Order: sequence, then structure tokens, then C-alpha cells
Amino acid sequence: MTLAERFAATFDGQGAMRTIGAQLAAIDEGSCVLELPYSDAVTQQHGFFHGGIIGMLADVAGGCACATMTPEGAQVLTVEYKINFLAPAAGVTLRATGRVIRAGRTLLIAAVDVATISAEGAIKQVAVAQQTIMAVPPDRLA
Amino acid sequence: MTLAERFAATFDGQGAMRTIGAQLAAIDEGSCVLELPYSDAVTQQHGFFHGGIIGMLADVAGGCACATMTPEGAQVLTVEYKINFLAPAAGVTLRATGRVIRAGRTLLIAAVDVATISAEGAIKQVAVAQQTIMAVPPDRLA
Amino acid sequence: MTLAERFAATFDGQGAMRTIGAQLAAIDEGSCVLELPYSDAVTQQHGFFHGGIIGMLADVAGGCACATMTPEGAQVLTVEYKINFLAPAAGVTLRATGRVIRAGRTLLIAAVDVATISAEGAIKQVAVAQQTIMAVPPDRLA
Amino acid sequence: MTLAERFAATFDGQGAMRTIGAQLAAIDEGSCVLELPYSDAVTQQHGFFHGGIIGMLADVAGGCACATMTPEGAQVLTVEYKINFLAPAAGVTLRATGRVIRAGRTLLIAAVDVATISAEGAIKQVAVAQQTIMAVPPDRLA
Repeated sequence: MTLAERFAATFDGQGAMRTIGAQLAAIDEGSCVLELPYSDAVTQQHGFFHGGIIGMLADVAGGCACATMTPEGAQVLTVEYKINFLAPAAGVTLRATGRVIRAGRTLLIAAVDVATISAEGAIKQVAVAQQTIMAVPPDRLA
Repeated sequence: MTLAERFAATFDGQGAMRTIGAQLAAIDEGSCVLELPYSDAVTQQHGFFHGGIIGMLADVAGGCACATMTPEGAQVLTVEYKINFLAPAAGVTLRATGRVIRAGRTLLIAAVDVATISAEGAIKQVAVAQQTIMAVPPDRLA
Repeated sequence: MTLAERFAATFDGQGAMRTIGAQLAAIDEGSCVLELPYSDAVTQQHGFFHGGIIGMLADVAGGCACATMTPEGAQVLTVEYKINFLAPAAGVTLRATGRVIRAGRTLLIAAVDVATISAEGAIKQVAVAQQTIMAVPPDRLA
Repeated sequence: MTLAERFAATFDGQGAMRTIGAQLAAIDEGSCVLELPYSDAVTQQHGFFHGGIIGMLADVAGGCACATMTPEGAQVLTVEYKINFLAPAAGVTLRATGRVIRAGRTLLIAAVDVATISAEGAIKQVAVAQQTIMAVPPDRLA
């Protein structure tokens, strides 16, 4: 299985990702890009992308980036994440780019940038996150 | 307007909250409880509540608690939050309880506990978050 | 060895703790209290306790609380922490109280409250932190 | 006054910085580099740089970077920070590099990298932090 295939299977199994309409845009060893088209389903009260949706996309992008660096069959769990919001998230697409900054045997640390893309293609950073992921080997899964 | 009325209006305007099915369960000065019924729309790949959904509910519960302590008409913006996941989130209801731990003129700090409730009514804490909220007075809104 | 004895040995070995003058005030299963007397050595530019010192005391109090719940001989490592500052830290003593909120086999999560104590004994909360600790069993060290 | 002069005055007034021996290595608009020579005064129990010291240096480096982008006379306060530790901090020098990633009128967000430098000059990243700073204008102080 390629990285894209491995992740797509997991991704399709996440009801929450289907609910908000997130899509895998790119994946490589140590990095993952997710995109979410704008819709009324993901807004806050002023019509921008909802902060909770931004956090959710960032969490999954970071976890996905880490999943590319764990043994096949291992599960990745989010231990914690922290996100700062930088600007109102207006645009037609929300993009979260996760990259691994430290891959240990048990714990992986990821950094995530979230940006909006306007109809004209302008990219603006709207959030930045830092995340700790735990890799659970297949033989430790209950 | 009562606190519940003030918040309900804002809450109804958030497409993302309707999308996931979150409901205001209780609100008082300095605290807010949100509940989310279990459905396929909010799951991760093992059928538990999705971590991103947990983060989203925590974010809104904390922001809502802070909104009870700002002047009417002021807007609350999430500056940042940090969440630790404590256990798999299995249950029929996800409940986030936000409470203000420091209310300044410009910045408010909230603590949020997230728990699952089982069909039998058992409550289990699944996440804990810490959040910074900015209050923007009506005359500073663009 | 009692808990206090176990921890005192570790504590005495930390040059940084001696440098700032931190002392173990109380320890029990799942909790730890550290105190730091005020001095010029721990101030910021306005004469309050320095934020970096507050973070340092919080980090050690949380790690110490977690160390009470790991097997003897295991080492605790701070994976990460997040701290919010609530008020200027003026007082004669700085007190950090760490308590474990989730103790897993590999990871432990702690919450830490930091307060100042005035000459008259008034206690004021000045910071709150959330921390992830990793327990490394003796046979995995080195 | 140059940026270096502005900051040096503030820095000299911080007892805690003198206590641990931190030095300003470089400063420019939006960035700040601090260095700390290794000594027994800043160690944890295994002789590495203490995590609390790393957090403290990161906090000050980020605050310093933000201070370069606020009006002269304004005070910068740390609202919160979050730090992940990536590796044991062994080396002759600890270096924290703060850079502003978003400068608002009231709030500034900084990212901080902390690295060790070995006797041979090898640089190794040991921690990464994300920080929220509040700028208090001169007329709002006291």
C-alpha cells in the first residue's frame, strides 16, 4: 500500500471527517495536507470558518503526518495539541499542513500551519498548532 | 435578555455547531455546559467521539463561559486553547463544561472539562482544556 | 523509602532547583507542593516573581506529582507543558501545587496551580498549567 | 535608542535572567536570540540543562522578539506559552530563538526554537514553543 492508500482507508472511516467534508490533498513521509471547502456547515456566527473546525483539521493533519512515520498497523493517538488563532478565517478553502518535527519510538511531535485560500488563490495563515502524538504498536492494541 | 437567550442566538448562528448537533445544556455567570449526542457524524475510525469534535466542543464551551462575563454586545474571540486527551471517548453523550478562572477586561482564561456519559449514566472524564479568550468591545468591532 | 525521601534525593540533584531556592513543601500520592521564597534572584523587571521562574516551578511540581505514581526507579520526563498567567506574582512565597489527573502506564497528565502568598498570608492564584509527563521504566533507561 | 539598547535595559533589570546567566545574543525587528552558558546552576538531575530553564529561556526569547514590535514604552506581558521538549539538552550553550509570527495591536504570537550547541559547535534542536504576548501601552500601565 502507498502512503496515500494507507491513510485514505483510515480517513474514510472517520465519520467526523466526512461530516465536515475534509479531504486529503497531499501526503508524504513526515507531512500531510488536508483541505476543507467552505460551506455553511463549517461556519461560526460571522460566516468565517469555525475555530473548532480549524482545530479539528489541524489535529487530523498533524496526526496524519505522524502516521506516515510509524510502523504499518500502528495506531496514532492524539495526546494533546495547542492552537493559536492568528486571523479571521475567510476564504473558499481551509488548508492544514502538518509536519513531523520529532519522531520518537513512542511519541511524535508535529507542527501544523492552517491557512485560508481565497477565490483568487491568495493564501493567508490563520492558525498555528503544536501537537503530541502517541504511536501504539499493533501488539499493544487491545 | 437572559443569559440563555443571549447565548442561544449566537449559538444558532454557528453552522458548525448545528452540523455536529451540539446543544446548550446549562449556562450561568462564568460557566457553560454543552452536550453533543453520539452519532456516526462525530466519530473517529474506531467509533469513539472524534478528538477534533471533542476539541471543538471544548473550545465553544470555554468561549461561551467567558461570553457570560463580558459586556452585552461584546464579541468573544478564541486566542488559543490547549487540550489533553485522557481516555477514549465512548458514550451516548459528550459533555463539555467550561468555567472562567480569570476574567480581565481584555482577556479571559477558561478551564474546560470534557466527559462522556454512558447509556447507564456513568460519567467519565475524557479531556481537559485551558483556553485564552479575547473580549472585543462593541465599539472596536469593525 | 518514603515518598518524601524518594523525591528529596532527586530534588537535591537538580542544580537549577538549588539555584532558584525551591523547596519541597508537601508530597503525597498524586500530588506535590513546592515553595520558593522571594528574592532578587527570581524577579522580573518590576520586582514580581519572573514568569520563567513560575513556569519552572510549575513544571517541577507537576513532574513531582507524577513521579509519586510511577514505579520506583522509573524516570519522569516532561513531554510538554502549557501555562497561563493570571495576575502579577507579588508576594513573599511562590507556591506550585501539582496533581495528577490521569495516570497511564506510559503517560501521565498533571494540572498545576501556582499561587503567591503575601506577608499577611493572603493566597492569590497567579498561574495555571497543564502538563504531559512520560514515565520511562528502569529497564528502558540508557 | 537602538533595539539592542532598549532591550538590554529591560533585560538587566530581570534578576532571574542574571541568576541563570542568560545573555542577549542577537536582536532584530521581530526576532531575538538568547544564549545561556552551561553551568551546574542550570542542571536537572542527570546534568542536562533543566527543562524549567529551557522553558524560562524560551519565554523570555519570545517576549523579547515581541517587544521589538511594540511602541517604545509599551510593556510586554506573557499571557501564556506552551513548550514541547524534543531531546535531552546536552551541550555547552543553550540558545533560544524567538520570532514573531503575528503582531496585532494588543496581542502578539511568537514561535520559539531552543537548541543546544556542543563544544564542537554542533547544533541540536531540543524544544519548540508557542507563545501569546500582550502589549500594554504606556498610558494603560499602573
